[in-house]
Amino acid sequence: MATNGKDSRGLKDDVCVHSNGSCKESAAMNGAATEAETPSNGAEVRPQRFTFSPAPSMEDIRRMQAEFTDERDWNKFHQPRNLLLAMVGEVGEVAELFQWRGEVAEGLPDWTEPEREQLAHELSDVLIYLVELAEKCRVDLPQAVLRKMALNRLKYPASKVHGSAKKYTEYKD
Amino acid sequence: MATNGKDSRGLKDDVCVHSNGSCKESAAMNGAATEAETPSNGAEVRPQRFTFSPAPSMEDIRRMQAEFTDERDWNKFHQPRNLLLAMVGEVGEVAELFQWRGEVAEGLPDWTEPEREQLAHELSDVLIYLVELAEKCRVDLPQAVLRKMALNRLKYPASKVHGSAKKYTEYKD
Repeated sequence: MATNGKDSRGLKDDVCVHSNGSCKESAAMNGAATEAETPSNGAEVRPQRFTFSPAPSMEDIRRMQAEFTDERDWNKFHQPRNLLLAMVGEVGEVAELFQWRGEVAEGLPDWTEPEREQLAHELSDVLIYLVELAEKCRVDLPQAVLRKMALNRLKYPASKVHGSAKKYTEYKD
Repeated sequence: MATNGKDSRGLKDDVCVHSNGSCKESAAMNGAATEAETPSNGAEVRPQRFTFSPAPSMEDIRRMQAEFTDERDWNKFHQPRNLLLAMVGEVGEVAELFQWRGEVAEGLPDWTEPEREQLAHELSDVLIYLVELAEKCRVDLPQAVLRKMALNRLKYPASKVHGSAKKYTEYKD
């Protein structure tokens, strides 16, 4: 994976995955990246932050999976409830990889490369069915996430919930 | 939701969500879209195809959720297994919306607007935890999906599996 130094860019100002190289940032953004965090307030230095590659987008994934399904004449099996059950099955396959292990630290330090790749496959399967389920339900998932995140910020104001795992219904005004 | 007429563009040739308008396609791509499909072979006309908005990207979602978690000092709760259990919980909330209904058609024709928005919220919650779980496991989820889709195309060749729901282990060479 290539590295880049762009993590803190603003969503609305500067978001580009133009993979044909016509946008000026695309070369620097080609690949997942880690970035050193150097707090100026003397706080503990956190581990380097991992980032995702900018492509494919969720719409790319939706379109590729739709083509995959169309080419195989599988839409007749891909009703919303079937897709939901397929997603549940894939979530179960992720769970299998974590069962009987005890706690697992961030970054999976004790996992082998084949175990990591198996996890990457199962997480991908969850995403693929989630995206297709959203499509078949006519939910614009990228935009829905923005609305839900705005709600979460209202339900859990940082000033009120800092360091606490209580549910929002347990907080007093 | 705005509409556009660009669905069949190739992933590798032309993918852009440069929301500040500096890429030539961005105006046309601002919003989810439907598009009429007009097969030239006289086959049944399929419903209009729904598409996702180009933004936010999965990396945008990862970064926003990381900021949300950091601001609340919640990383101490967000170990991989806890995030996996959180995702399982959200999948359960999606399942609740589909239980006791009988079959649900594509597009959810009988669902009310509040029911659709509730579904959008729960699907978003699944995605948010999936993205954070991938981050904490150092899985570059967008790229992992490309690898898994390539594998799926190998496991299920269109010429061999057309119209069949058999698992790949059931096909004979």
